[in-house]
Amino acid sequence: MLALPPAATELLHRLTRLPGIGPKAAERLALALLTWDVVEVEALAEGLRSLRERVTECPQCGCLAQDGELCMVCSDNLRDPAVLCVVETSLDAIAVERGGSFEGLYHVLGGALSPLRGVLPEDLRIESMLTRVREGGVREVIVATNPSPDGEATALYLKQELAALSEQEGSVVRITRLARGLPSGGHLDYADAATLQSALEHRVEM
Amino acid sequence: MLALPPAATELLHRLTRLPGIGPKAAERLALALLTWDVVEVEALAEGLRSLRERVTECPQCGCLAQDGELCMVCSDNLRDPAVLCVVETSLDAIAVERGGSFEGLYHVLGGALSPLRGVLPEDLRIESMLTRVREGGVREVIVATNPSPDGEATALYLKQELAALSEQEGSVVRITRLARGLPSGGHLDYADAATLQSALEHRVEM
Repeated sequence: MLALPPAATELLHRLTRLPGIGPKAAERLALALLTWDVVEVEALAEGLRSLRERVTECPQCGCLAQDGELCMVCSDNLRDPAVLCVVETSLDAIAVERGGSFEGLYHVLGGALSPLRGVLPEDLRIESMLTRVREGGVREVIVATNPSPDGEATALYLKQELAALSEQEGSVVRITRLARGLPSGGHLDYADAATLQSALEHRVEM
Repeated sequence: MLALPPAATELLHRLTRLPGIGPKAAERLALALLTWDVVEVEALAEGLRSLRERVTECPQCGCLAQDGELCMVCSDNLRDPAVLCVVETSLDAIAVERGGSFEGLYHVLGGALSPLRGVLPEDLRIESMLTRVREGGVREVIVATNPSPDGEATALYLKQELAALSEQEGSVVRITRLARGLPSGGHLDYADAATLQSALEHRVEM
């Protein structure tokens, strides 16, 4: 495009590599950035750099942490280390955290099992989860993988591994998973068949 | 949110100040950036900085240019300086440029007249447009303001000013505006009433 100087074209090119940013959105972002104070743009650039350089994975649970230290959840003494919520990605942990009611710790698998895409148990943080359960006095593991085929398969695999561990160690670990049903604020006629089926199956007494 | 380290929270906060980026999108962007190579993130940060520091307005037309020089269009000898396309913002010039068939030069007004929002003729680059027409041997001015009330009002104002100038100078400048009608690839039943009305009114012989 002739109407754009090289400095802008190059940035647009880089921005479109971000998820959800197409050529149009990139143009809009660049135009907005041009109206920002230089100090603000500097701070954004510095923020990007510091995100990439300082944000690390929590050595215990795999959530986002900073400078190689434990994450905010793992380092919080008020959280209950006996309840472990196992999620696929740190985004999922953030989503659960947003609810504000979970008081245990997390364990991020780093994905879901998918033999077709070559993701095998050894590619996920399953071994370290079992170690945590074995050594950490864990009473309950909440399997919070996604309700997708890969997530379901992963949940089943984890259940087997945890059951085997319980038997072997002689300790009883409660294994639960998130409830399936209608989303809050949803409408019956917008719910898909599988969701409605789950909601019926797991109906509760009023 | 407890699950996020400070370096990430701060960046998310900054990202949500960009147009079209909500809290969810910002999270997705940050997560994606964490998977990028450090070099790539550095380059993006540097790109932001260089955009803000190097990209300037073309001193002649107001389009985006670099380091205070003329923009790529104004400095192109093959473009016809006798045809001037007057647009509201440099984004509009980019949109016209994308079409690839316009061979004249641009003039960016920097907005549209809007007495209600306090945008008066002296707030736009109208004076410099008249100077360009007077001194630059311009034969045709294409008024390409938006088909919105403000854009229409601006077009009418420009027409009056250009007509007055023609009379005063004794030179004849052709004043045109973009055609109104159905968008290419559009459907009749999706077109709004005003668009259909325009399309009927300006129908052409087959």
